[in-house]
Amino acid sequence: MAFPQNVRLVEVGPRDGLQNEPEPIGTETKLALIDRLGAAGLTHIEAASFVSPKWVPQMADHREVMQGLTRRQGVTYSALTPNLRGLEAALECGVDEVAVFGAASEAFSQKNINCSVAESLERFAPVLERAREANVRVRGYVSCVLGCPYEGEIAPAKVAEVSKALYEMGCYEVSLGDTIGTGTPLKAKRMLEAVAREVPMDKLAAHFHDTYGQALANLYAVLEEGVAVIDSSVAGLGGCPYAKGASGNVASEDVVYLLDGLGIESGIDLEALAATGTWITQTIGRPNRSKVGVALSAK
Amino acid sequence: MAFPQNVRLVEVGPRDGLQNEPEPIGTETKLALIDRLGAAGLTHIEAASFVSPKWVPQMADHREVMQGLTRRQGVTYSALTPNLRGLEAALECGVDEVAVFGAASEAFSQKNINCSVAESLERFAPVLERAREANVRVRGYVSCVLGCPYEGEIAPAKVAEVSKALYEMGCYEVSLGDTIGTGTPLKAKRMLEAVAREVPMDKLAAHFHDTYGQALANLYAVLEEGVAVIDSSVAGLGGCPYAKGASGNVASEDVVYLLDGLGIESGIDLEALAATGTWITQTIGRPNRSKVGVALSAK
Repeated sequence: MAFPQNVRLVEVGPRDGLQNEPEPIGTETKLALIDRLGAAGLTHIEAASFVSPKWVPQMADHREVMQGLTRRQGVTYSALTPNLRGLEAALECGVDEVAVFGAASEAFSQKNINCSVAESLERFAPVLERAREANVRVRGYVSCVLGCPYEGEIAPAKVAEVSKALYEMGCYEVSLGDTIGTGTPLKAKRMLEAVAREVPMDKLAAHFHDTYGQALANLYAVLEEGVAVIDSSVAGLGGCPYAKGASGNVASEDVVYLLDGLGIESGIDLEALAATGTWITQTIGRPNRSKVGVALSAK
Repeated sequence: MAFPQNVRLVEVGPRDGLQNEPEPIGTETKLALIDRLGAAGLTHIEAASFVSPKWVPQMADHREVMQGLTRRQGVTYSALTPNLRGLEAALECGVDEVAVFGAASEAFSQKNINCSVAESLERFAPVLERAREANVRVRGYVSCVLGCPYEGEIAPAKVAEVSKALYEMGCYEVSLGDTIGTGTPLKAKRMLEAVAREVPMDKLAAHFHDTYGQALANLYAVLEEGVAVIDSSVAGLGGCPYAKGASGNVASEDVVYLLDGLGIESGIDLEALAATGTWITQTIGRPNRSKVGVALSAK
């Protein structure tokens, strides 16, 4: 067990955090959010999702967002691209990096993207091939790694199998998503250990949701194992679609506070990040789900 | 590092959780809360505080609460007794156990109870002596073990010194309070290790606040060290008086969910506990600060 010296945060607030918001959020607000996140020191920002506006109306302005960015040196602006059409559009907009989205649960894959896990991987093959041609890196997400809303428990071996497939297809990094936030620390460790036997630890990221309040404990447990990439969302933006009113993504501010306390470098300015969380939640009229954000702004 | 097989929760909701509520809460509501907590499997409930109503008006009905309890077999009903007068009143009401409240921070002690740490310990001596005569156990609290609102960082050696003094004076257990919730896991471990060199681990409890969202991560870290007693508050009742709007006590439901996931026995029925959290927060008009409580009630 050895903590990493540095951790890279992948900020998913502008995409995962906003995508389920029912009221349209202006492109200018999204761009301002992305800019403030970059100014706070985030080096990896998931900015948009190139999916059909029929599925995710909130992300309909993905072209305007991706083309309207004020790019900062050293910052990667990525987008979700579930298929070749989405990828082509993202490439036209000059995306730095794209992501594909698989699942460790057959039932979740069927209900969410209407095909088996194996079929989903087949669909990603041309996306990865085209991205390679365009010299754009692809990140792979695996959802339901610590539980599924339909199947319940998920075997670590299944997570390892899907992660290995994505890695071998060419994903440079695999992000392990506790989509419904039901994981606890020892389960998170066991899952990670199973995956790390197939994919190098430095190619893995932890994407944990805080639905049951366990995200930081789970992150601490996998940091002990050496995970050095963490996905999070400013102000904890993004609810859990499987439990109305419940939390979704772990808050970036709370993760940075944890890392600071552990002496792990992230390069992020916590005060600037917390101010961004206060600003965006006030702007879109949502509660601030970062406890650090609330505590700092109450001071 | 060895996780305990069993953990005892000390439920502080009826006292620490309610004491700062500005609107008076009826004695019947407090009694119903205590009864439901016992029914959910809590075996240790801090029911009241025998302090002057001038200081803590919400606890003015301490006699009525302590005498009105429907006692369950196997449940300890305790009360805070800062001085001999409070202890005598608590003894008259048939209290099972009492608690005294010290600090690891000189500045906090001065501002909070208007005396030095050494003087506070001297004041506890007659309380402990009288409790011993009455055959009533005394629990010792140490506040500010991971930070002070006035002094900032607190040396682990200072926490160990105060803990040792309380233990040697006769406290059967010392509860280590991260009063302002600024702790992080490695600091919590280091503090605990320092204390455990002076007081046996099985005489120590972790009393962590969630102001910065770190409580469960910190608890996981000290469970790894073998701590087997955790203080918590149903629904996370109790704000942080040092940061308006910020969280106070870690939520009992979230702790039980963590323990269940780690395979550690607590004897608590999580659904009954979560229902109690939903009920009390609705009754007193407070947000439910247990993420588990919110997620389960949203299902």
